[in-house]
Amino acid sequence: MVGTAPRRGRPGYDLDSLLAVAVQVFNERGYDGTSMEDLSARLGISKSAIYHHVSGKEELLRRSVDRALDALFAVLDEPDATEGRAIERLEHVVRRSCEVLVAELPFVTLLLRVRGNTGVERAALARRREFDSIVTDLVRQGEEEGDIRRDVDPALTARLLFGMVNSLTEWYRPDKGLSAHDLAESMAKIAFGGLRNV
Amino acid sequence: MVGTAPRRGRPGYDLDSLLAVAVQVFNERGYDGTSMEDLSARLGISKSAIYHHVSGKEELLRRSVDRALDALFAVLDEPDATEGRAIERLEHVVRRSCEVLVAELPFVTLLLRVRGNTGVERAALARRREFDSIVTDLVRQGEEEGDIRRDVDPALTARLLFGMVNSLTEWYRPDKGLSAHDLAESMAKIAFGGLRNV
Repeated sequence: MVGTAPRRGRPGYDLDSLLAVAVQVFNERGYDGTSMEDLSARLGISKSAIYHHVSGKEELLRRSVDRALDALFAVLDEPDATEGRAIERLEHVVRRSCEVLVAELPFVTLLLRVRGNTGVERAALARRREFDSIVTDLVRQGEEEGDIRRDVDPALTARLLFGMVNSLTEWYRPDKGLSAHDLAESMAKIAFGGLRNV
Repeated sequence: MVGTAPRRGRPGYDLDSLLAVAVQVFNERGYDGTSMEDLSARLGISKSAIYHHVSGKEELLRRSVDRALDALFAVLDEPDATEGRAIERLEHVVRRSCEVLVAELPFVTLLLRVRGNTGVERAALARRREFDSIVTDLVRQGEEEGDIRRDVDPALTARLLFGMVNSLTEWYRPDKGLSAHDLAESMAKIAFGGLRNV
């Protein structure tokens, strides 16, 4: 490791590695319960060194939840989410969202805990509602195209579907050997085919 | 209202009404972030008046999460959860759990946020794991009886199923006109029959 040690014997952070630690502390202590002092202590750098990268705690929150939201919205722009029958597009969105949650687990975990006390939080909630509304439209189109059962409400279905997807922030552990792909596969089977053996 | 005013012009609490307020404050501020002073201020009674009912904050937490857990475990003892084919018993447990979540919404919300920092929290997590394990067994039996698809893992299926159920603590609002029964019905249709129109 000669030659790669951080300068001056202190950990050297770029914005990404700073964010990775900040999101972890936010998830442990809650955003409201985390002070710049807490972040400084955990990072092992001074507050002014943190201010070199960001304007403060709220920018760290904004960058963290935007990272999760940007990844989820990027899924909606993928070709398989924009072309073809709505049910196939919806299934693609569910599978890929599942993979995004695994890839960006701490960032999505933080996003899902945001309650709307600050401008950044309210903006994040607004983007979540926009995402939900796009998923609801996909369910509605799938019903209109005759591929999705018509006896469930599209908005409720979207909520239940993403209730299942989002639950993985509560229990998924990357080190337990279940790959994002296998998880997405099981989720799609259950959500689209149902548990019942037919 | 003459004759029913609280004695001495102060709100009168029994244990249940005290708990109803405490669980609300815990959900708003987080259990760790709530002090006996916060509870005293919200209840409009002194700390010693609270200590008349409970030994402290941790007993309020224990009684709150036990209320949720007792209601969920009671479902497992209902005749429709103990007799008949496993898939029907599982469907009963899903529907009734959904109704319990609606009936005990703030208590289950608190339960699902418990992270295990105290003895009470660890005990609650242990009871949640026991519940999950019973649901997992039902899925496994349903597979063995040939009613549930065999191409999904029982433990993963149990998690996804209750991910869907538990998500309602995030978005269900009792005043929006969706009854617990209709919610349970939609959830059962999607989880057991799948979204796909067949």
